Amino acid sequence: MNIDRASLIPALKNIATRLRIDSIRATSEAASGHPTSCMSMADLTAALFFAEMRFDPKDPKNPESDRFVLSKGHAAPILYAAWAEAGAFDRAELMKLRTIGSDLEGHPTPRLPFVDVATGSLGQGICAAIGTALNARRIKSDYRTYVLLGDGESAEGSVWEAANVGALDRLDSLCGITDVNALGQSRPTMWEHDMGQFERRWQAFGWHAIVVDGHDLSQILDAFDEAKRTKGRPTMILARTIKGKGVSFVEGKDGWHGKPFKKGEEFDRALAELEKQFVPVPESGPAANLAGQIPKPSSRPRAVVTLKPVAAPAYTMGELVATREAYGTALAKLAQADPRVVALDADVKNSTFSDRFEKVAPERFYENFIAEQVMVGAAMGLAARGAIPFPSTFACFLSRAADFIRMAAISNVGIKLAGSHAGVSIGEDGPSQMALEDLAMYRAEPNYTVFYPSDAVSAERLLALMAYHPGPAYMRTSRPKTPVIYGNEETFTVGGLKVLRESKADVATVIAAGITLFEALKAYDELNASGTAIRVIDLYSVAPLDQAGLVAAGRATGGHLITVEDHYPVGGIGDAVAEAVAGAGFTVRRLAVREIPRSGKPEELVERFGISAKHIVDAVKAVVAGK
Amino acid sequence: MNIDRASLIPALKNIATRLRIDSIRATSEAASGHPTSCMSMADLTAALFFAEMRFDPKDPKNPESDRFVLSKGHAAPILYAAWAEAGAFDRAELMKLRTIGSDLEGHPTPRLPFVDVATGSLGQGICAAIGTALNARRIKSDYRTYVLLGDGESAEGSVWEAANVGALDRLDSLCGITDVNALGQSRPTMWEHDMGQFERRWQAFGWHAIVVDGHDLSQILDAFDEAKRTKGRPTMILARTIKGKGVSFVEGKDGWHGKPFKKGEEFDRALAELEKQFVPVPESGPAANLAGQIPKPSSRPRAVVTLKPVAAPAYTMGELVATREAYGTALAKLAQADPRVVALDADVKNSTFSDRFEKVAPERFYENFIAEQVMVGAAMGLAARGAIPFPSTFACFLSRAADFIRMAAISNVGIKLAGSHAGVSIGEDGPSQMALEDLAMYRAEPNYTVFYPSDAVSAERLLALMAYHPGPAYMRTSRPKTPVIYGNEETFTVGGLKVLRESKADVATVIAAGITLFEALKAYDELNASGTAIRVIDLYSVAPLDQAGLVAAGRATGGHLITVEDHYPVGGIGDAVAEAVAGAGFTVRRLAVREIPRSGKPEELVERFGISAKHIVDAVKAVVAGK
Repeated sequence: MNIDRASLIPALKNIATRLRIDSIRATSEAASGHPTSCMSMADLTAALFFAEMRFDPKDPKNPESDRFVLSKGHAAPILYAAWAEAGAFDRAELMKLRTIGSDLEGHPTPRLPFVDVATGSLGQGICAAIGTALNARRIKSDYRTYVLLGDGESAEGSVWEAANVGALDRLDSLCGITDVNALGQSRPTMWEHDMGQFERRWQAFGWHAIVVDGHDLSQILDAFDEAKRTKGRPTMILARTIKGKGVSFVEGKDGWHGKPFKKGEEFDRALAELEKQFVPVPESGPAANLAGQIPKPSSRPRAVVTLKPVAAPAYTMGELVATREAYGTALAKLAQADPRVVALDADVKNSTFSDRFEKVAPERFYENFIAEQVMVGAAMGLAARGAIPFPSTFACFLSRAADFIRMAAISNVGIKLAGSHAGVSIGEDGPSQMALEDLAMYRAEPNYTVFYPSDAVSAERLLALMAYHPGPAYMRTSRPKTPVIYGNEETFTVGGLKVLRESKADVATVIAAGITLFEALKAYDELNASGTAIRVIDLYSVAPLDQAGLVAAGRATGGHLITVEDHYPVGGIGDAVAEAVAGAGFTVRRLAVREIPRSGKPEELVERFGISAKHIVDAVKAVVAGK
Repeated sequence: MNIDRASLIPALKNIATRLRIDSIRATSEAASGHPTSCMSMADLTAALFFAEMRFDPKDPKNPESDRFVLSKGHAAPILYAAWAEAGAFDRAELMKLRTIGSDLEGHPTPRLPFVDVATGSLGQGICAAIGTALNARRIKSDYRTYVLLGDGESAEGSVWEAANVGALDRLDSLCGITDVNALGQSRPTMWEHDMGQFERRWQAFGWHAIVVDGHDLSQILDAFDEAKRTKGRPTMILARTIKGKGVSFVEGKDGWHGKPFKKGEEFDRALAELEKQFVPVPESGPAANLAGQIPKPSSRPRAVVTLKPVAAPAYTMGELVATREAYGTALAKLAQADPRVVALDADVKNSTFSDRFEKVAPERFYENFIAEQVMVGAAMGLAARGAIPFPSTFACFLSRAADFIRMAAISNVGIKLAGSHAGVSIGEDGPSQMALEDLAMYRAEPNYTVFYPSDAVSAERLLALMAYHPGPAYMRTSRPKTPVIYGNEETFTVGGLKVLRESKADVATVIAAGITLFEALKAYDELNASGTAIRVIDLYSVAPLDQAGLVAAGRATGGHLITVEDHYPVGGIGDAVAEAVAGAGFTVRRLAVREIPRSGKPEELVERFGISAKHIVDAVKAVVAGK
């Protein structure tokens, strides 16, 4: 931007004042929201949007565009005001803030084209920013990522996970800004205005830290320049600010968090004070129209993504392969077929077999060490920018990122999670390593696709399917080796199931997935030997599921459905099937793990916790006996 | 301990060697486990158990006893070996490691009397240690808390949440030890042996940091002494160690994580090397029997807990009070009645109303700032040591601690969680602030009690109930004000429900809780006016629930049950009721939030997302019409 500082700063000052006014107007109109949290960051926002970032207000999704993530999502009104000021939409829209008909929600969501990921759960935006910065490296773009955090937010552990990964990955295209306004929601923040507390931490975590007065535009602009010059590590600008800056009777006052100005005298006084802060600027010349001067993203020929066919599964029927291993094999194949596919690990790549991806595409393999929140958060940022990210770890440890998984649903971003070592069938490691509530976690979210393969062929096929199905998805894999039961050319669908055993004489339908499918097949053999026929269904697609197929099977088998799963009874296959067939009036009997398990051999645990072939046989016999 | 260093160190050296041998023997016998992770910490463990901690091996639960938390839970074999060495149980038991008949599980759980909280999900033990240290302050005991972490584990954000809280609370009774063995599961750790990386971080977070050679017993003993002398802040001992220390062919070698020595030549070689490391010690004198010299915990008269009666609710029928506010009122009353009750906050005390507790018992109110993992983890440590902790925040943000909530189930500790602002009825703040999957999260765990009060009286009564019901519990509260519908003397039970409307002519039963109960009552009035009677149930106890009561209501109303909840359909009231009545052959129609919601007025959202009185009326009409 070719504007001298002497002209630029008064112009930015006026924009900051307008952003404060807009934030106050919108929240007072909505009668809710966080104006004082916007006011502390107004100067930072003005400088960032109108003297630093390169973007096109009319094309916010441009892949070469600088990114801005508002990690302190409750300051949404000023984010919206800045985009309106830049010309993205009509400023009058701001007055619809928080109303049911407007996408200008209380906290930002990607319903708005200029929002990459939903924020509002603190400490997540900076993790997503790691992802957008990694994506710049992936597509060899020079776009920069800016992320603005609150000081209160800096108590979240996820912030420090992101700090580690940002430094390790030497993400010098990433610039953080912490709005240190010293006041949290309910009290002063942990470190108030002790800027050394922040500086020491960020430096210790390997970032370049710059302390500025967050209301001094000259210092702010210098800091952005310094950040751009800083190579080999990310920069964190620590801005000392005043909450409520600009309105004397709220400045630095506790008790004003999340409180709009009351219409009437309070509102009028606040606005009158701000109106007086406008300074004279030339009526013509570049500084008169900063919005018109925003530098466009670099335009370069967009790389054409060339896709190769994914190699088909190559197993022999009956071969023993763990689904977690097939996952790794399939992921490596997909890496070779599609350059948008990336993988993220939390130091368990040799257990999840994502190390097979690393071998073929090390430059797209992101190690986060034991930090699941930033792994999932970075995946969200990558997905928002066009990558197809596969974060994986033990299924139980993905619960560490449950809140990110929830926010990914709200963001509707295409993260492709995989959790290995599901259930009691992991054996000796004991309950801390067993995921028994993961299906509930993903199924609860309205837009997750949930797959649960039982053999290697289905694992490979489902992985390719989840990569290209829109939205977030989860695949559950198992530790034990299981026999291949499908031919390499078998096809699978989102929302499908497979009927593996059926006859006209079936007395009940047993529905299973993963390791319990093999218990069901064993039960079939045993019952068959004594003259009882059952239907066996592989419910590989747990969400969505094939309601019609389940109802048809129920109709054909006397309305008797038995589910069996290596999961607690809540929120898993039993609940899913029960809701699907509720309208048909069928009985669903649920075999599931009903108490906290313990260490032991896998087969001992499957037996002891009620999900073995024997328990299935007993359940079928109870059905036959009319019990 | 009055043993001169010259005698003490060789004796500790021999104990360390025995601990290594025991760890190897047990894991080789189990054919799984993590011997090399034990071997790096053997010298630290020997010094801690046999020259530092004050405890009684035969009375590990002694309230004055020093605490040891093994945050790197996969090193369980050496924890067990140390307790056996101390005389807690017969060393022969060690060979039952990881078998189904033994409580010596793959990772430690409180099935063992010397384990406070289950570990094995990394980064949690240090949070629990914050809680045990806070408890020492609460009961005015001089016991110290020691917590041993892995270096890989230090990438978890929860570790840094604990670091902040430990420093802020000036917990000088807390001593951390990081076993920096430089090797993770799948590769070298983030910082390998760069001890400065650790030192800078812990110092920046306000801890006293001491770097030692983790195999030099003299340095280790000095560090423990220095930690005890350090006042006003916790100490972190950063011990540089070698993974697999003691067996030359695995020392510092990648690829040996979680790998036992193979019985036969490999095992024999390892043991032969270790056997040679025993050094001569005098056959008599104190150093000959360190286990016999362990200093006992200080014995002082145990404080008698004096309980006062909890003041009864004091509302008037029809008064408008939010359940979240009643929660705060009840918590403050309970604080005055029972000194064991403590509260933990994550900077939302003015929204959850836990600030009312702070006002009456500030010394038992623990502020964690915006850090939900350490809030819940510290509560686990507090509960394990006899406190009755109530951590609370917005229900959606408790999902940040989902993995802690899972481990609390495995630990079966009595944490009493409360989540406010449930569901779409919070309104304008939007989906990021709405918990719509929380009931699924808690119900999934086999031993959580889950309460969902609808009015202030039930909120108060249920809070007192959850405080004294054994095990973990969760209360869901709402943002909007709702009318008081129960008299102040009304009683409630774990697993109970209330039938609020009933007649012989009821055509269906509507089951609700929280804000939807009032939608159900409105629907009742509307239907009643047009001559249709329905039964209305307040399902305040969601887990456990009153199966018999639900079945009886179903029988009396034609088998027609309608559930309505401010929650996604998975894992909430609908699923809970459906499973409970599955055996009776009833139809359950579920009204729930079926898509990602958005900002808007509470009543607009309740309508739009399908859980209002109108939707209930429609559902009842469909039942009557036989649809």
